[in-house]
Amino acid sequence: MQANSSPITARVQIELAERSYPILIGTSLLANALTYQHLPQAATALVVSNTTVAPLYAAQLTEALQAHYAKVLLVTLPDGEVHKDWPTLQLIFDALLENGCDRKTVLFALGGGVVGDMTGFAAASYMRGVPFVQVPTTLLAQVDSSVGGKTAINHPLGKNMIGAFYQPQQVICDLEVLKTLPDRELSAGLAEVIKYGPIADMAFLDWIETNLDALLAKEPAALAHAIQRSCEIKAWVVGQDERESGLRAILNFGHTFGHAIESGLGYGEWLHGEGVGCGMVMAAHLSQRLGRIDMAFVQRLTTLIQRAGLPVKAPVLSSTDNAGRYLDLMRIDKKSEAGEIRFVVIDGPGKAAVCAAPDAVVREVIDLCCA
Amino acid sequence: MQANSSPITARVQIELAERSYPILIGTSLLANALTYQHLPQAATALVVSNTTVAPLYAAQLTEALQAHYAKVLLVTLPDGEVHKDWPTLQLIFDALLENGCDRKTVLFALGGGVVGDMTGFAAASYMRGVPFVQVPTTLLAQVDSSVGGKTAINHPLGKNMIGAFYQPQQVICDLEVLKTLPDRELSAGLAEVIKYGPIADMAFLDWIETNLDALLAKEPAALAHAIQRSCEIKAWVVGQDERESGLRAILNFGHTFGHAIESGLGYGEWLHGEGVGCGMVMAAHLSQRLGRIDMAFVQRLTTLIQRAGLPVKAPVLSSTDNAGRYLDLMRIDKKSEAGEIRFVVIDGPGKAAVCAAPDAVVREVIDLCCA
Repeated sequence: MQANSSPITARVQIELAERSYPILIGTSLLANALTYQHLPQAATALVVSNTTVAPLYAAQLTEALQAHYAKVLLVTLPDGEVHKDWPTLQLIFDALLENGCDRKTVLFALGGGVVGDMTGFAAASYMRGVPFVQVPTTLLAQVDSSVGGKTAINHPLGKNMIGAFYQPQQVICDLEVLKTLPDRELSAGLAEVIKYGPIADMAFLDWIETNLDALLAKEPAALAHAIQRSCEIKAWVVGQDERESGLRAILNFGHTFGHAIESGLGYGEWLHGEGVGCGMVMAAHLSQRLGRIDMAFVQRLTTLIQRAGLPVKAPVLSSTDNAGRYLDLMRIDKKSEAGEIRFVVIDGPGKAAVCAAPDAVVREVIDLCCA
Repeated sequence: MQANSSPITARVQIELAERSYPILIGTSLLANALTYQHLPQAATALVVSNTTVAPLYAAQLTEALQAHYAKVLLVTLPDGEVHKDWPTLQLIFDALLENGCDRKTVLFALGGGVVGDMTGFAAASYMRGVPFVQVPTTLLAQVDSSVGGKTAINHPLGKNMIGAFYQPQQVICDLEVLKTLPDRELSAGLAEVIKYGPIADMAFLDWIETNLDALLAKEPAALAHAIQRSCEIKAWVVGQDERESGLRAILNFGHTFGHAIESGLGYGEWLHGEGVGCGMVMAAHLSQRLGRIDMAFVQRLTTLIQRAGLPVKAPVLSSTDNAGRYLDLMRIDKKSEAGEIRFVVIDGPGKAAVCAAPDAVVREVIDLCCA
C-alpha cells in the first residue's frame, strides 16, 4: 500500500453544521493509506457489499481497515434493486447483532446506490444510529446517491418509501473502481451527471457535451471533473435544504417520471439511471409544454441523453390506459401532496422549479414519449 | 364534546430547539376540543392503535380528529411486546401507502409503549419522516416511553435494537383513559415513576412513598402529580442529551438487568415495567456492592417496589449457568461498549452514574437476587 503521496485529487465538503463531511475524489484511493486517516474510531467495522462488488474490492477494503479496527466484518448482500427490501436489510442487522456490534461500530457501504441506501438506513436505525462511511463503486453512487444523506429501502407499493435522512462520516470516490463498471451502468451514472446541467449549471452542460466521449471511455481526468462538479452542485443544494423541504427537490429532475417507469416495469428491469435519463426527456417535454423552455432545448437534452447510451423512448406500462397508469404511479411519489403530483421542471436553461401540471398536459407528454 | 373550559391541568415542555414540544396532562383530554387546538395541519391523519385499546378509545379520538383532517384512518395492530417487530410495523406502512398518504400525513399513536414506539419509528421512516402525536393510554407510556423521542422495534437478538431518535409534535396524557388500565399494568407504570426518585429527586421518592396507596387507587390528583413530576425530570434530562451520548443513560436505571429478564424469559412474559422494577432492585444491590449506597437504601427501594405490586425476586434464566446467561444478555445491551456492560448505578441517594462493574460482583448480585 502506498502511503507517501496523497491520492486525493479533489475534496468537496458537505456543510451541515455538526453533520458536515468530506467527499474524497481520486485515483486508487482504496489502495492508499492516506485515504483512511480520518475514520471514526471504534473497535469494530462492518463492510456491507454485494455479490458483484465484494469479490472485486472487499478484500482490499477490509485489509486496509484492519489497520484501524480490531475486528473487521463483511456482510455480502444479493445484488440488485429487487433486493432493496426489508429481508435484505435484516441481513445487516443480523450480522451486527450476531457479532455483538455496539453503538460505535462503523459501517462501510461498498457498492452502488442500493448498497449505499441500505447500509445508510441500517446505520441510521441500528441502536438508533451508528456512524457510516460511503465507498461508492458506481458512477451513479459517486455523483448522487452516496452524497446527501438520503437512505431508504423500497416497499412493494413504492420506491424509497421507508428510510431516513442520515449523513455519512465521509464519502470515498475511487476512480479506479470504475474500471470494472459495465458500460450500461456507466451510462446510468451519466444520467445523474447530465442532470446537474439543466437544473443548475449550463457551463457544466456545455462541458459534458464536449467531453462525453472521454467520459464514455472512462478517462480519469474527465471522470474526476464530472464527479467533482456534480458533488459540488449537490453539496450546494443539500447544504441549503438537508431534509428536502424545498430547494432540494430540484435534484429529482427526471425522477418523478423515472420512478414511475422503474416501478411500472418492476424494479430492476430498467436501471435507476435509465429511468432518470428517459424521465428527464419526459420532464423536458413537460417543461416545454408549460412554456418554460423551447423545443430546441428539449432536443439538445434528448440528443445528449441518447449519446450517453440512455433510453429516450418511454416504455408502455399499460395496454389499456397507459397514461393513467403513469399518473397513478406518480401520485404515490414522495413529493406528491394531497394526491397532487409535484413535477421538477426546467424553468429556463440552468434553473429548475417544482410545480403541478394539468393531467391532460401530462397525458400528452406521456403519449408523445411512449410513441 | 366540552369546549368551554380547559381540561389541561399541567403542561410540561420538552426543550429541544426546533424539535421542542409540549406534554399535556389532564382529565378527559380526549373528550375536549381544546386539547386539539395546536395539531399539525394536513389532509390525512392515521390513528395507530391495538386490539385492546382501539375498541375503548379509537372512536373518540378519530371523531375528534375529523374536525381537523379531511380523512382520518385507523390501523389496529395486534397487542403485545411480542408483536413489536417488522411484520407488525409493515402494517402501518401498508395502511399509509394503500391510502396514498403523503409526507404531511400525521400519525397518532393511541396505546401503550409498544404502540408508541412502533408508531414513532413508522413516522420517522415513512417517506423519511412525517409528523406524529403520542396519545399514551398506559401510565408507563405517559411517564416514560411516549416522552423523549426514542422509537424502535425489537430484533430476535435484542430489544429496541432497530429504531430512531424522533420527537413527536405533542404528547396527550389523559388521566381518564387510565381508568380502564389493568392493575398489573398500573404497577408496571409505577416502576418508571419510582425510578425518577433514586436517580434525580429524593423529595419525589418521599412523595411516592406517602402517596403510593392513592396512586394504586388511581386517584386523579395523585396520578396527575406523579405524571407531571416524572415528565419534568425526563424533560430536564432529555433536554440536555437528546441522543443519549451521556446523561440520558441514567433514565435506564434498572433497565440493563430488566432487559435481560425480558429477553431471557421471552418478550411479553414479564411486562417491561416488571423487568424494570426487579432490575432496579438488582441495580440497587450492585450500587451497594460498589460502595455507592448503603443497604438501608437498597431495602427502602425494594420495599417500595414490592408495595407497588412489582416483582423483586429475579427469575432464573438458565439452570446451568444462570449468571452467565444474564451477563451474555446484558452484553448486547445498547449501552455496552466493546463488550463491556455499562450499568446505571445509584451514586448516593438522588443521583445516578453510569459505570462498568467486575463480572464477579455482577454474578454475586444475580445469585443473590435470584435466590
